[in-house]
Amino acid sequence: MYFHTLREVPGDGEIPSHRLLLRAGMIRKLASGIYGYMPLGYRVIRKIEQIIREEMDAKGAQELTMPAFQPGELWKQSDRWADFGQEIFRLMDRNGREFCLGPTHEEIFAMLVGGEVKSYRELPLNLYQIQKKYRDEKRPRLGLIDCREFIMKDAYSFDKDWDGLDLTYWEMHDTYSRIFRRCGLDFRVVKADMGMIGGLDSHEFTVLSQHGEDMIACCNSCDFAATLERAVCAAGIWNQDGEERRLLEIYTPNIKTIHALKTFLGVPGDKLLKTLIFKVKDQLVAAVLRGDRELNKVKLANALKVPPHALEFASAEDVKKCTGAETGFAGPVGLRHAKIVADQEVPLMKNAVAGANKTDYHMVHVNYGRDFQADMIVDLRLMEEGDPCPQCGSPVTLARGIAVGQIRQLGTKYSEVFEATYVDENMEEKLMVMGAYGIEVSRTMAAIVEQHHDEDGILWPLSVAPYQVMVTVVNVKDATQMCMGEKIYQALRDSHIDVLLDDRDERGGVKFKDADLIGIPIRITVGKRAGEGIVEFKLRREKGREELAYNGAVFKTLKLLKQAGMK
Amino acid sequence: MYFHTLREVPGDGEIPSHRLLLRAGMIRKLASGIYGYMPLGYRVIRKIEQIIREEMDAKGAQELTMPAFQPGELWKQSDRWADFGQEIFRLMDRNGREFCLGPTHEEIFAMLVGGEVKSYRELPLNLYQIQKKYRDEKRPRLGLIDCREFIMKDAYSFDKDWDGLDLTYWEMHDTYSRIFRRCGLDFRVVKADMGMIGGLDSHEFTVLSQHGEDMIACCNSCDFAATLERAVCAAGIWNQDGEERRLLEIYTPNIKTIHALKTFLGVPGDKLLKTLIFKVKDQLVAAVLRGDRELNKVKLANALKVPPHALEFASAEDVKKCTGAETGFAGPVGLRHAKIVADQEVPLMKNAVAGANKTDYHMVHVNYGRDFQADMIVDLRLMEEGDPCPQCGSPVTLARGIAVGQIRQLGTKYSEVFEATYVDENMEEKLMVMGAYGIEVSRTMAAIVEQHHDEDGILWPLSVAPYQVMVTVVNVKDATQMCMGEKIYQALRDSHIDVLLDDRDERGGVKFKDADLIGIPIRITVGKRAGEGIVEFKLRREKGREELAYNGAVFKTLKLLKQAGMK
Repeated sequence: MYFHTLREVPGDGEIPSHRLLLRAGMIRKLASGIYGYMPLGYRVIRKIEQIIREEMDAKGAQELTMPAFQPGELWKQSDRWADFGQEIFRLMDRNGREFCLGPTHEEIFAMLVGGEVKSYRELPLNLYQIQKKYRDEKRPRLGLIDCREFIMKDAYSFDKDWDGLDLTYWEMHDTYSRIFRRCGLDFRVVKADMGMIGGLDSHEFTVLSQHGEDMIACCNSCDFAATLERAVCAAGIWNQDGEERRLLEIYTPNIKTIHALKTFLGVPGDKLLKTLIFKVKDQLVAAVLRGDRELNKVKLANALKVPPHALEFASAEDVKKCTGAETGFAGPVGLRHAKIVADQEVPLMKNAVAGANKTDYHMVHVNYGRDFQADMIVDLRLMEEGDPCPQCGSPVTLARGIAVGQIRQLGTKYSEVFEATYVDENMEEKLMVMGAYGIEVSRTMAAIVEQHHDEDGILWPLSVAPYQVMVTVVNVKDATQMCMGEKIYQALRDSHIDVLLDDRDERGGVKFKDADLIGIPIRITVGKRAGEGIVEFKLRREKGREELAYNGAVFKTLKLLKQAGMK
Repeated sequence: MYFHTLREVPGDGEIPSHRLLLRAGMIRKLASGIYGYMPLGYRVIRKIEQIIREEMDAKGAQELTMPAFQPGELWKQSDRWADFGQEIFRLMDRNGREFCLGPTHEEIFAMLVGGEVKSYRELPLNLYQIQKKYRDEKRPRLGLIDCREFIMKDAYSFDKDWDGLDLTYWEMHDTYSRIFRRCGLDFRVVKADMGMIGGLDSHEFTVLSQHGEDMIACCNSCDFAATLERAVCAAGIWNQDGEERRLLEIYTPNIKTIHALKTFLGVPGDKLLKTLIFKVKDQLVAAVLRGDRELNKVKLANALKVPPHALEFASAEDVKKCTGAETGFAGPVGLRHAKIVADQEVPLMKNAVAGANKTDYHMVHVNYGRDFQADMIVDLRLMEEGDPCPQCGSPVTLARGIAVGQIRQLGTKYSEVFEATYVDENMEEKLMVMGAYGIEVSRTMAAIVEQHHDEDGILWPLSVAPYQVMVTVVNVKDATQMCMGEKIYQALRDSHIDVLLDDRDERGGVKFKDADLIGIPIRITVGKRAGEGIVEFKLRREKGREELAYNGAVFKTLKLLKQAGMK
């Protein structure tokens, strides 16, 4: 057995799953965001894949595999070649033809099915594949959470109409819930942003974890749950007091931040206007929102119909171009050469404070409508803990999580581009209606560890454990112990149980530490009482251990696995 | 079921496997040398993979998966970054770091194991993976035979010493034979060239096929078998008659080829010397061999210690540089600025004819030693049908084949570069001795079709058939037939048999044609006699068909599968 545990992780372990998977010898890093899966770790991957296959197949989805290597021209046809920017790996073949390493396969599947399926009788159709995918992450981190090469299951459905898609979509919603439950995960299904894939409705399956980098907002009173990116904020009513006062310019030397302004003026954040200037392609855009709010860049990007990475902070020079002032004094009044996008709260504010577009000056008593107009008024801000739920008004809770799956209603976006049409019952040609369903398999493995570990190591759920049982022979030089260990090992193997025999010539302590670290759920220890036919039985998740006759230990193992539906 | 057969293949089908796999809807082309595996085809791939897993696991090899994405610096360390030339796909990440898509993984595994394994107690070790690999073929062709993205099993073994490697090597030799036999292949194990991977001994597993692009030479009297590239030619004894005659220049206007020279002079080919000038990196090399022999470029490349693709024909200008003449009049006598590599037959030739290194002139009575010397004398020529076997002297036979597997003794080549050492029983540090073992899974699928098809379609062996049984309902509008069809389908499914039910609303003829094309081994047809409980039983490989009671058909199927060891 190739088996190499580490006592410490060289600098790298950013979160428990990363640290423990490295220490347990389940994964090895080859380059930033690029990992190999060692024999133990790969067994976990294959078990997760098997769960996915069983659940997808049960719904009539069909497995195949398309190339990871995709012609650039398909991405140009769908207009995503530019949109993905540096996020995809691009390369050229020896003839100078452009390719990319697919981070996703909408183009390929729309083209494939569009080219072959002709009749309504062949629909609906749901095709899936499990393969390595590629994404040139800016900062690959957190071990298997954010990788540049990762293992993914992606599926694409083709329906006759929107009702059909709805059926498939909610069936996949169920299927995903079952898959992640079988993996032993505690997760939330949240409304999600469509991102660069595009489409109409989408849900993410987010595993709750303090180390997750996805924030989700949930309501405890109703069923509202959404990614923070996507969470729609309620438009409240504030500051509507009194009448509009006269606009005044005030001297605020060197006061360039909202924080400094609050202190200098002694005014609360909800009385201030924040103006952030971005460069989007060749255009300047000013996002205006309440001083105590955070901008949700995804909402701004969606409003502008560009991908989030297209938003860049404007240079000092560009800021000067539209404000005539140094950076730090921008405001919506009199702003030139920039599109103004205001948060929905901005028109409700009375007599606010804003930058004066003049170095070292701000304006007080700024009022929307009288003093400035926006080009767009939209929901721009990031939801905060305690904000009113957009559905029921109760305060929302924010939580961190790891998005392990996403389902999307793509509609006809790709069918249109690749002419994926069929002839219906009345001989009319119609567009197929598509859905896409992804699971990040390698990230799921990490998420399982995030939720199942203690200070000594991993606690694999039985369903995905690399081995279900570990038989540890304390002293391999003792023939009685070795013989007993091999007997139990063989008995379990004969019952088709995944069992590992630790017959290394190491001290017992080393073996127990390793067993805890790699987290095999059931442990049978053969020690001094082997001569009496007695072994120790212990579950990794529980402190207790009991002494049993060796066949009692085998029997108990079989019973446990049967109860868990694993046999 | 996603199922799309084609009547004809648009221009593409170069050989039967390519044509039939496309027509049967098993594969689809995305770009030159880049294919997707559709549900039916992917089932075959997964069955081949399963056979490989079972046989590798039985020998204690362990599965894992390393990244396809490999840092360029590892390839520079082993000096292969340049050697692979345009054969590998290279790309850069957003930080300008160089990567390649791995066509093979020697570097990765030597580094991995070298970094983790420390003691002789952890050896031997054999690690394997099954994954997509990449190679930028100059002319991808023949469907799945020469692809740019292909599915490969590669394994790397680590032994304490050469004896250990020998054991592992011959064990893998056996394992490979078993794998290919289980896939239903008729193959030969042949001595192979080491190629750019390097190493000491190597065998290829070559499936005999008239459409194969690998040539092998076999002896029918002894066990000699080798790839044509590798086949060592016996050095015979010819032309030793008479004494050396006086060197003469003769006028041969516009006679630039061996063929023209033979006709012009009326002299047999074995009296002529052929001189071919190559540019290898910055050096000019003249290969000299008997006029009626073909040059084996691999032998020349090996002699020069460069990869074969480094050999380019010299330009007219370079030819002039070393001959002083136009192209077509090169000869070994008085050749300048070029390294002369002569075939082992050349020194044995007496009074030969050669180019005079002077436009429109040749020389007669050229003799090695007296008139010129070579820098190297080696075996340079391509073996021909009927040549004497280098082991026993009987005439050899040439055959075409498809190389589906290769095993290689790498020795310490990569262990040295990546410092893969261990401490032995005497506390001495030693280099691990490596082997590498590859199977091209997707090419194996094509090779199976090459050997198992007829004019109507594929004849899958039971072991790799996408489904073992096909139940065809002739008239799906007849309730009795449909009911009987589903009953048989269910009975076989309950016995865990891979069974496909053709319940499409198509004419019987269409269904039978499709069934022949996709090649399911056992076919049960439910037709007019369904009411009497009678169905038709037929094997795809045999013409005959018989009528059986429906449970008799189920029973016979089970019996057949049991006999074949499939149940």
